[in-house]
Amino acid sequence: MRIAMIGLGRMGGNIVRRLLRGGHEAVVFDRNQHLIDDLVKEGAVGATGLDDLRGKLAERAIFWVMLPAGPPTEDTITALLEKSLPGDIIIDGGNSFYKDDIRRAKLCVAKQVAYVDIGTSGGVWGLERGYCMMIGGETEVVDYLDPIFKTMAPGRGTIPPTPNRMEQEGEDARAELGYIHAGPPGAGHFVKMVHNGIEYGLMQAYAEGFDILKSKKSDKLPEDERFDLNLTDIAEVWRRGSVISSWLLDLTASALAKDQMLAQFTGTVADSGEGHWAIEAAMEEAVPAYVLSAALFARYRSRVEHTFGDQVLSAMRFGFGGHTEMPQ
Amino acid sequence: MRIAMIGLGRMGGNIVRRLLRGGHEAVVFDRNQHLIDDLVKEGAVGATGLDDLRGKLAERAIFWVMLPAGPPTEDTITALLEKSLPGDIIIDGGNSFYKDDIRRAKLCVAKQVAYVDIGTSGGVWGLERGYCMMIGGETEVVDYLDPIFKTMAPGRGTIPPTPNRMEQEGEDARAELGYIHAGPPGAGHFVKMVHNGIEYGLMQAYAEGFDILKSKKSDKLPEDERFDLNLTDIAEVWRRGSVISSWLLDLTASALAKDQMLAQFTGTVADSGEGHWAIEAAMEEAVPAYVLSAALFARYRSRVEHTFGDQVLSAMRFGFGGHTEMPQ
Amino acid sequence: MRIAMIGLGRMGGNIVRRLLRGGHEAVVFDRNQHLIDDLVKEGAVGATGLDDLRGKLAERAIFWVMLPAGPPTEDTITALLEKSLPGDIIIDGGNSFYKDDIRRAKLCVAKQVAYVDIGTSGGVWGLERGYCMMIGGETEVVDYLDPIFKTMAPGRGTIPPTPNRMEQEGEDARAELGYIHAGPPGAGHFVKMVHNGIEYGLMQAYAEGFDILKSKKSDKLPEDERFDLNLTDIAEVWRRGSVISSWLLDLTASALAKDQMLAQFTGTVADSGEGHWAIEAAMEEAVPAYVLSAALFARYRSRVEHTFGDQVLSAMRFGFGGHTEMPQ
Amino acid sequence: MRIAMIGLGRMGGNIVRRLLRGGHEAVVFDRNQHLIDDLVKEGAVGATGLDDLRGKLAERAIFWVMLPAGPPTEDTITALLEKSLPGDIIIDGGNSFYKDDIRRAKLCVAKQVAYVDIGTSGGVWGLERGYCMMIGGETEVVDYLDPIFKTMAPGRGTIPPTPNRMEQEGEDARAELGYIHAGPPGAGHFVKMVHNGIEYGLMQAYAEGFDILKSKKSDKLPEDERFDLNLTDIAEVWRRGSVISSWLLDLTASALAKDQMLAQFTGTVADSGEGHWAIEAAMEEAVPAYVLSAALFARYRSRVEHTFGDQVLSAMRFGFGGHTEMPQ
Repeated sequence: MRIAMIGLGRMGGNIVRRLLRGGHEAVVFDRNQHLIDDLVKEGAVGATGLDDLRGKLAERAIFWVMLPAGPPTEDTITALLEKSLPGDIIIDGGNSFYKDDIRRAKLCVAKQVAYVDIGTSGGVWGLERGYCMMIGGETEVVDYLDPIFKTMAPGRGTIPPTPNRMEQEGEDARAELGYIHAGPPGAGHFVKMVHNGIEYGLMQAYAEGFDILKSKKSDKLPEDERFDLNLTDIAEVWRRGSVISSWLLDLTASALAKDQMLAQFTGTVADSGEGHWAIEAAMEEAVPAYVLSAALFARYRSRVEHTFGDQVLSAMRFGFGGHTEMPQ
Repeated sequence: MRIAMIGLGRMGGNIVRRLLRGGHEAVVFDRNQHLIDDLVKEGAVGATGLDDLRGKLAERAIFWVMLPAGPPTEDTITALLEKSLPGDIIIDGGNSFYKDDIRRAKLCVAKQVAYVDIGTSGGVWGLERGYCMMIGGETEVVDYLDPIFKTMAPGRGTIPPTPNRMEQEGEDARAELGYIHAGPPGAGHFVKMVHNGIEYGLMQAYAEGFDILKSKKSDKLPEDERFDLNLTDIAEVWRRGSVISSWLLDLTASALAKDQMLAQFTGTVADSGEGHWAIEAAMEEAVPAYVLSAALFARYRSRVEHTFGDQVLSAMRFGFGGHTEMPQ
Repeated sequence: MRIAMIGLGRMGGNIVRRLLRGGHEAVVFDRNQHLIDDLVKEGAVGATGLDDLRGKLAERAIFWVMLPAGPPTEDTITALLEKSLPGDIIIDGGNSFYKDDIRRAKLCVAKQVAYVDIGTSGGVWGLERGYCMMIGGETEVVDYLDPIFKTMAPGRGTIPPTPNRMEQEGEDARAELGYIHAGPPGAGHFVKMVHNGIEYGLMQAYAEGFDILKSKKSDKLPEDERFDLNLTDIAEVWRRGSVISSWLLDLTASALAKDQMLAQFTGTVADSGEGHWAIEAAMEEAVPAYVLSAALFARYRSRVEHTFGDQVLSAMRFGFGGHTEMPQ
Repeated sequence: MRIAMIGLGRMGGNIVRRLLRGGHEAVVFDRNQHLIDDLVKEGAVGATGLDDLRGKLAERAIFWVMLPAGPPTEDTITALLEKSLPGDIIIDGGNSFYKDDIRRAKLCVAKQVAYVDIGTSGGVWGLERGYCMMIGGETEVVDYLDPIFKTMAPGRGTIPPTPNRMEQEGEDARAELGYIHAGPPGAGHFVKMVHNGIEYGLMQAYAEGFDILKSKKSDKLPEDERFDLNLTDIAEVWRRGSVISSWLLDLTASALAKDQMLAQFTGTVADSGEGHWAIEAAMEEAVPAYVLSAALFARYRSRVEHTFGDQVLSAMRFGFGGHTEMPQ
């Protein structure tokens, strides 16, 4: 199939590469000309703007928007919708908030344009491993795009099949290839949002565990209770037969193998919105989300030296006990 | 009554003062001679050591140990127990772990010495406001010491009586004066330990709330959703008729009235053991203690610039997404 | 002053009573006729609807809406705005989301109607103790309404003044009477929202603490480490000289004095929106809110027998260890 | 090598099987005769008691104790130590608290008996997949036992090697086979304890995520924001190329494939000690462990219908607002 990709960053560029290698055609655009040029060398067709892009697509044009969530995505989709013809398909493959998808899909429907939201996981490894995709949209449209998804997805690979699977009605065979039609517009990004919420929680669980291991050599502990543990070996051994083996652990093992002190990293950790939205969703549903929220807050906390709240604590302690602060 | 006080720091010294003013006698000892001298000027009898101390007391000597928990308290009580005669009373008025009390009480019983543990709250304000006391020990002994406790306690004061009170069997009239016989040895420090666990939780609730208020002027927020709030006035107004009025809020209001920025404090917050032990107790009882533990962890976190866990998070993010760290 | 009150529930009705007693006049309306009748007997003027209400007010009419947040408040304010004349004042005294205030205030401005949002704390005790008020609105309007606020507020009462207070520029003398002008429209409800977030945190801290105390008699603990503690006395003694004394503790002491088992309550705990919004605000500001969120989640959790998450845990444990579930 | 196994439950029995298949010899004992008989049929040598067991071993006897932590393990090791000769080796392969290992190792050293503690992960899958082992003990002894460990471990298998590995000094090649010598006695169980703490955190992250997904169809949500998601397919797709793929997710996918409602499970979740000890370790080291503690508390909470804390909350709400409880 022929597809237009708007946004050729790390994700968008590699998706195009994977599609080209799979025999599809891609028309590409980015504000950054050299990103276009690079892909043209690899077989894509360059475009000079959104009008040119539309012109280089046939009927039922497929636009894949792969831009940062918020204004870049919003403005681009608004512009595309104006240029679209009935039957065209706009895909938001970025990290949008699912309520924005629901809203936008209604606008698109009014113009007989289809709207599809896709949450993709796989990061920089997607080109090689394939992209895990969670797709929201109308069934007919998602089915129409299937050749695209099949090429992008990891496929069955060497991952062992899940016992018991395909015994319930309604299970989707595509899940075993690495993509699902999650539901109507918004459902793709919703599932991806929860995925990222879980991701934060998993990461924080490992982070706290390795912190406990590392701090076990602290000279504040009784001398016969101190251990100077080899974190690199521990991460490695947990990859092999333990209950907590995972891809995130594989990555941690690799980072620790490079440098057990992780001295390259100061520990200032960004979050990208999904963790926040996942907690919002939990609150709307009255679901307790202790771990997912704590994981998010740890990132906020990592980015400030002290909170004002910490100062309030010190002020109270001084007030009732005359306590002065500890030296850091 | 005549009582010996060992440890004349902020707490021990003021307790002696309050007892002297209440007509009791005190023999005092501290490793720091000038602390002894100060109290002698106010009417106490100085001692040169534990032997001298015992000599200056009659039968049924009362030793009040007011030292830091851990070795200072443990060693002093061990030494006192050796010098004690049957019928003597050893009081640990510090912040000991209640299981240490249980253990020590057994050692004392073997020598016919009584052991009493007292958790006191009130901080530097106790001299003036009186001390809130939670007492563990045998009933006969606690009753014998009652004149001491009555003098130390705040008394009824102007605090309105609790509706419904004194209608259940087994309620203790002393509670309205500000002290209770909580149970056998260890019970006093156990109740005080939970008190401090709650204290950490309350403090952290206010701390987070004031942080949310202060950060509402952040220029990362949409311009029409920013507020530059006066924290001093907010703390003040909450003291008056609101559901969250408390003594800790009074202290916060006073600190904010002095300097709304709390610039005197960096936000490095100590913890003193009770918070930790309260979580241990919760775990032994399988009681969920989300808030009390989070409050404790916030203090740990306030004392390091970055955790190793934060670095692990950054290493993973770099691993799967090529993400570099945020500038702080 | 003469004021119209729409919504005569527990809060609205008592506010009218307090205003009448303070020499103000009130025109009252509610869908429930007997609530109107009751207040008419106490000196209020009844109205048959919003039109009648407007007719019974002079120029610069003051409408106080005291209804549940969401559609009841929204619809009433929309209707009032249609019937309002330039110069009129609409007050939302309920528990609205502050972003709704910001939006509504813009609509009002367009019609030269003033919008004021007031967060009130004090619950059923307000009639007697006075209402603690956090007010958002334009300065001129808030000043104009001052006689109303002064009557409603608790006043200085017997609460000791805050040391250091009134030494910084910009402090508001009204705070000592129990109300503040927090900022532009929305600021009143924002401050009240954070107040309630803190309230949840404080409550949960006490709740966990009393749970640890109560569970200390569990027969799962070693026999010499069990205590059968008198919670009623403990709550009472903490009211007197302890660091954790507060109004919420006073209420707890009273409830425990009535029945130490609290058998009247099953422990199914509602939340009213502010706790949720406070976490949202924290996330927008990137403020870690571990305690406030945990307190909110405890309420969600109290309302279900088991979460689906609990079942997922059991399924995993069965999967890797063949573990069957514990009997409850 | 020839080894004695005491305790032939799920773990002990399968370890014997794996060793027999690997060409080792095993003398086996359990209080339950039929467990002995079963293994004798598979080639083990049965024993009638600890004395018989010692008699059937040569010099440098190896005793592997595989019993529940606490008194069963403690008593058995005490008895074995009495019957041991200098040079013998006692292995605690269960889930003991690492401080018990440190204590016991000192007792063993005094009798020239070696003590080794082994944390094993792998659950019921170990027979087939091999056991991931974390070993504490003296180097010479651990090296001596290597043939045993090599047979028990999973080996390299098809797990891809970790990039960067074996470039730092001090890395242990055995880690790639699935076992490590973590440090002196106690270190094995310490690392296993942290492993389980992480395990609880990971499990809770997935649990909360699936709860948010499932509750998205709640009729309390606005109708156009509800999704009826297929959890089975979502778990499956996340196994394939996503950042959160893991063995625990594989197990979840399998359980959901069997029954998306997980109706077989009520959600009453046990914990086995390690999660508790991991939090204790974190507190001793002053490491914030928000996620690991929250995961533990969720299990406590899953085992009671309501906490007393919940009742305290209801009592307070009734006290200040006259609020009655929600129907569950």
